[in-house]
Formats: sequence, structure tokens, C-alpha cells
Amino acid sequence: MYTNDWRIPADTKGSPHWAADLTAAEFAARGVNVLDGDLPLPLCVLREAALAKNSDAMARFVREAGHDVLLAPHGKTTMIPQLFHRQLETGSWGLSLANHHQVRVARSAGVSRIVLANQLVEPAEIDYVLDELARDPDFDFYCFADSVDGVAMLTERATRHSTTRPIQVFVEAGIDRGRCGVRTIDAAVTVGRAVVDAAPHLRLVGVAGYEGILQTSERREQLINDYLSFLGDVAIGCDGAGLFADAERVLLSAGGSAFYDRVIAMLADLPLSRPSRIVLRSGCYLAHDDGFYSRFATDLLRRDQLARRTDLSFEPALEIWSSVLSTPEPDRVVVSAGRRDFGEDAVRPAVIKHARRATSVPDRLDTAHHTIVAVYDQHAVIDVPDGHNLRVGDRIALSPGHPCTTFDKWRAIHLVDDAYIVRDVLATYF
Amino acid sequence: MYTNDWRIPADTKGSPHWAADLTAAEFAARGVNVLDGDLPLPLCVLREAALAKNSDAMARFVREAGHDVLLAPHGKTTMIPQLFHRQLETGSWGLSLANHHQVRVARSAGVSRIVLANQLVEPAEIDYVLDELARDPDFDFYCFADSVDGVAMLTERATRHSTTRPIQVFVEAGIDRGRCGVRTIDAAVTVGRAVVDAAPHLRLVGVAGYEGILQTSERREQLINDYLSFLGDVAIGCDGAGLFADAERVLLSAGGSAFYDRVIAMLADLPLSRPSRIVLRSGCYLAHDDGFYSRFATDLLRRDQLARRTDLSFEPALEIWSSVLSTPEPDRVVVSAGRRDFGEDAVRPAVIKHARRATSVPDRLDTAHHTIVAVYDQHAVIDVPDGHNLRVGDRIALSPGHPCTTFDKWRAIHLVDDAYIVRDVLATYF
Repeated sequence: MYTNDWRIPADTKGSPHWAADLTAAEFAARGVNVLDGDLPLPLCVLREAALAKNSDAMARFVREAGHDVLLAPHGKTTMIPQLFHRQLETGSWGLSLANHHQVRVARSAGVSRIVLANQLVEPAEIDYVLDELARDPDFDFYCFADSVDGVAMLTERATRHSTTRPIQVFVEAGIDRGRCGVRTIDAAVTVGRAVVDAAPHLRLVGVAGYEGILQTSERREQLINDYLSFLGDVAIGCDGAGLFADAERVLLSAGGSAFYDRVIAMLADLPLSRPSRIVLRSGCYLAHDDGFYSRFATDLLRRDQLARRTDLSFEPALEIWSSVLSTPEPDRVVVSAGRRDFGEDAVRPAVIKHARRATSVPDRLDTAHHTIVAVYDQHAVIDVPDGHNLRVGDRIALSPGHPCTTFDKWRAIHLVDDAYIVRDVLATYF
Repeated sequence: MYTNDWRIPADTKGSPHWAADLTAAEFAARGVNVLDGDLPLPLCVLREAALAKNSDAMARFVREAGHDVLLAPHGKTTMIPQLFHRQLETGSWGLSLANHHQVRVARSAGVSRIVLANQLVEPAEIDYVLDELARDPDFDFYCFADSVDGVAMLTERATRHSTTRPIQVFVEAGIDRGRCGVRTIDAAVTVGRAVVDAAPHLRLVGVAGYEGILQTSERREQLINDYLSFLGDVAIGCDGAGLFADAERVLLSAGGSAFYDRVIAMLADLPLSRPSRIVLRSGCYLAHDDGFYSRFATDLLRRDQLARRTDLSFEPALEIWSSVLSTPEPDRVVVSAGRRDFGEDAVRPAVIKHARRATSVPDRLDTAHHTIVAVYDQHAVIDVPDGHNLRVGDRIALSPGHPCTTFDKWRAIHLVDDAYIVRDVLATYF
């Protein structure tokens, strides 16, 4: 399951009607060019060359960061099992996910090591994990906990279950006025002790957090340093309370896609009673973007020596191809993609490429002078410069400003080579 | 196809793992209660009682508006074929859609009369329509055009095709600094004449527009009146130029889900050379919402006598059920639904109901004092009042602020009765 043997459902957005019930491999064998006009628009492509480059860059960075740094990339970004496996095959330690649904998709795809980077509270969802632990000795499962109530729920279900394998738990430490996670060291110790006391059903493995919710603050660098310092103190506090007495090593997990260098810097040399390992959970590096994470990546390269030394750079891999529907005013065109086709929660997409109708080689647009000024469910309005050369029926590529909220707009994404020939069709499972 | 014989795919968000490959009817036969804890969260429900009420209310209003007012509800809102049929069975004249993909879904579902309320420019997409016209004598198809170039593209494909049935075209008239549509009467006449000249391949049927993009302006009432007045002048201009000489009647189409009363008022009695009919394209009435259209509905009822006389009122039918994951601060809880589960483009969801863990009867929350203050991909943070009674593991229902961008977050939506028992599972085709 979840390979290129999957069959393209009838009436999938971006797929032609004749693709219904073909396998992705059969469709790819036809050698269709996205720009030849055989495929309906809008459609979403992933550029193979950019994926490969991004995947290599991150693998190199993590490898060079040393054996105490592990990557469990966040699968929620793409929800494409084929990309999960690509990430695992290029050296990732495991896969991070955000909820039960995502865990199920990854399990169906055969992923063995999963960090559910979230609380787990629904009885049926806890039971599912316990069943999987019982069924598959290779299943290595971790989740977060930030309350004694939450630990009690895990414990209650686990004690009723026949499996003898523990649910492995990180204490989650959060940010004031932020999201999940305890706010104090004392609270962390209390939650951690509840986990330890629930042995053998639960096992405490470390502490975890997420600095990414501070990314959008103007004071982000300072706030993230402060938060990671707190996260380190939580680990030290739990260690000092003896909560890791049975652990061979302590796991420390944080890291979105913008400040993972700071996670390494701040958590690498904590004074703990036993060795530690850092588990990064970055997910957006693989597809990258043209706006949100691209800006952060530039900052990271400037800030971090290892990033510079390993030539850590990414390029946007996602493109949304749309038709020019209308040129209603001299300085505006309207295209056939909208907020149901790309994310606009962080930054609107950049307008990057143009292909004249009935041509299959695109040219680059001056992104500074082609700007999306309005977005509707199924349309975007683009301001264009004097003397622009765009006509009704031409095609325009948009490069999303945030990958997570673009992947989830598509059930099938076309993997293309540099000539825009479809090499595979990837199913998403949102 | 597209009935409750469809099979629930494995690992569908909101479906339990044991639902894989069951038909929706088989799943419904189990009588599962959404609040009993057997289903993973978050999940999306549609309340049958609200759907029925909303459907009846709109049907009554349109019926009472007279035989010259027709409803072609916008299917893009739900993209649920079973609801398309419900709308057609309750008196809708046809179905409006926004692009090729949506038209294909509706055709697969057996919808005969379709208004593609958009430009149609891609050769393969035009060919699809021509093939369908040739294949099915009952297929009654309309689209918009706003440029001579666009008309030339339709004509070029149609002249190559064997079908003898014309593509029926509305001239689209738009809004300055808005979206598609000609900006002047002269331009409308020019485009309309190009359509007439393309007989027998094309046929001009009327004029169309969309006032909805002005909804969010503070001066909306004035701007919408001005625009609808322009739309009427465009119809009069085209009529005066003799463009409707071969038409039995002229179709005038506009109407989102907020100002359709004004569309009727402004377009009902135009001085045209032949009878006219108004085709409304409202789509959001069926599910309604708790924020965006609910406010407009109150305004409409105040403004319009027919609405008051026919008791035109709607209630929100969509709910997103989520788990309380964390209560990290005294005045905040974090739930397990985020921007991948509901729309936040217009207004954030209202926080409306609470069900204690292991109970299946929800109570109402005071929505004024439970407010979403932050939204992430998979979480929402809710400010709650002093003395709130929410605990980790409880369930919370969110009522979306805009239906369009909530439906498209789900592949399966549970239709429930008043007791939250699942009566059907509806597939969406985004």
C-alpha cells in the first residue's frame, strides 16, 4: 500500500479524465508534459530535482551535526507516504506526526518509528497504539504528555491492554500564552513522575517542545533562545529528580524548520546524569517554499557555522500551475488557482513562471513585479507590470509561501522532471 | 457512483480504522454515536436537521420570488454529489460550479444542467465539455466569457468538434479592481457580438456577474447596488445591440449567499426586448455558518420583505468535533483541530458545545466567553472564562465561520441526527 501502485481515483483534481483507475506508474509511463495542455488546471507539481537537493542538504547537515543529533522529520507537512520513505531512506531516525489520523497513515505505509509530537487523549486512539505495539514488535512509538490527567488516560488504557510493551513518553514543555506543554519545571517533574510511576505501562524517555510558534514574533531570536533555555532547564530538573534513572539516554526533542540550529546549540551540552540525544522534527525543508521558510533559511545560513560549512540550502519544490482566465485591466490578470489550491496563511505565493499557450518551455517572471493582490476560493488576482506579455490561455506557475497549507489542498501531486514531464503521481492522505 | 454505495478509504480522517472499505451505508447501519468515543477526532459532522431546514427555507424563498427567479446553487461550497442531488430535488434549476474539475465531478454524479460560473480557456477542458454535449443530449451547459480571446478559444475548439450543440455563453461583467468580467458596456457588447458571430458553435444566453467580492467592504450595500445597476445596464446594452435577437429569453445571473435579494430587486424588471429570468448562484445557504454568512443573513432578513414573509432563516449545519488536549493555563485550553480542519479565511469558528469525556449528550457553551485566540495547522487555542469546567479528554464542537473553506478540509463528512448518531457518510470531491 502507498506506493506507485495506487490507482488514481476518477475526477481527481489536476488529473485528466482518462487517468481514472490508472496506477500512478501507468500514468507516469505515458510521459505526459504538464505544459502540453493535456492536463486540467490548476494542478500541483513537485520538482524532483529540488526534492533531491533539499533531501540531500538536510541529510548532510544532520550527519555532520554529529551522532547525537537525529532527525524525525514532521510528516504532517506532506502526508505523502512515498516521501516518508524517502526521508527514512536518507538517514532519518523516525517520523514525527501530529495526530492519530497521521499515525495511522504512516503505519499503513509501514513506518516503524513514530514520534506523535502531541498529546494522546482519546481512548480509541490510545487503544489503536496499544494494538499496534502488541501486533508489531518493530513498532517504536513515542508521544508527548503535559498533564497528570493525560498520563492517567494513557495509563488507564494501557493497564487494560494485554501488550507488555510500554508507550514511550516525552514530557512536553510549552510557552506562556502558547500551545500545549507544561509552563514550569515543577509541573514537568510532576508529569514526568506520573509517567515513571505508570511503569511498566509507560516509560519516560525525555523532554520535548516546539519553538516554532515563536517564529512569527519580531523578537523571535531572543524568545526562542529563552524558550530553549527553559526546555533545557526542564530536562535538567527532571534529571535531578531522578526521573531518568532507568534510561540509557535522555531524548531532547524540538525543532521546526527555522531554528533547528539553535535547538542543537542550546540542547547539545546539558549537564545531565547520562548521555542525551537531540531529535529534530523539521518537516518543511523537503519542499521548502517561496516566502515563509525561505526567509528563515537565509537567516539560519547567516547565523550557523555548520550550515555554512555543509552548504545548507534549499529550493522551493512545489509549483501550482494555473491558467490566465482574464486580463480585465491593463495591470491585472486573473488566474485559475485560489485558496483551495495553495496556502495563504503565512505569505501568498510568488508568481514565478509563465508558459505561452501551446508551448511547453516556461520562462521566468520577475517576481518583484508580478504580485498576487487578491485571493478567492478558486481565483487569484495578480498585479502585472506595464508592457506585460500575458494573454488569456497562458499558464502561470505560483510558488507557495508555506508548504504545509499547500500540500493539503491536493489529493494527487505530480512529480516532474526539469522538462515538466510527469515521472510519478503522489497520493496525499490528509 | 457518488451515492452511499461509495466505500470509505482506509485511513480517512475522521473515520475509525475498522471503517476501511465499508460502504457509507454499511457504516451508517452500525448506528455509531459521534460522541461515544468510537471515532477518532477531529471529525466533521453535518447536522441533518439543519440541512433540511436550510434547504427548505431557500426553496421556499425562491419559489415565492416568482417563476422568473431560478436557483443554480454553487456546488463548489460542498463538492458533495449527494448534496448536489438534494439541491436539485428541492427545486433548483441547475448547479453552478467554478472550474473543470468540479464540472467533471458533477457530470460523474449525473447532474444535467451546469453553469460553469467562470471563464473556460484550456483546450482539453473545452474539449471535455464538447464531448459531453455530443455524448449526452440532456446535458445543458453554460459558461462565462469576458474577452474576445476567450471566445475565440471556445470557438476554435468547437469548430473542430463534431457536436452540433452549442456551448451556451453568458457575457461576464465585472467590478473595477475586482476579478474576471468586462469593465464597460462597450466591452460587453464586443464580447457578446463575438459569441453571436460564433454561431452555431456558441450561443449567447445572457449576462452574468458576481457581487460577492464586494461583501467585505464597509460600503457593501452601496457598492453592490452600483454594481448590480451596471450589470443591468450591460444587459440593456447587449439587448439594444441586438445580441439577444435569437433568444427566447435573456438569462441574468448573479448572487452569492449574502445579497441575492438585491440581485432580484435590481435585475427583475429591466427594460429588455424579451422576457428575462434571474439565475441565482448562492451556495452557502445549505450549510450556513457561524460568523460570515450568518451576519449577512440577519441583514438580509431586516432588509427584504419577501425574506421576512417566507421566514427565511438558516442555522449552521457544520460542526468540527475535537478533543481537549491540554489545559496549560487557567484561562486557556488547547483542542485537536486546526486550520487543516476548518476555514479561518473569513472568521474563526465559534466554540459552541462541550461533551464531557464518556458522555454522549453535549451541552452548549457560552460562545461569547469561549474564543479561539490562536490557530495552528493541527491545534486551536481557546480562551475560556474563570471557573470553566473543561478537562483534558473532553470534547469541544467548533462551528465554522465560513463553510467553503471547511468542507474542503475533509474527504468524508458524517451526517448525524440530533442525537449525534451517524446516518450517512458523505464523500467530498475536492
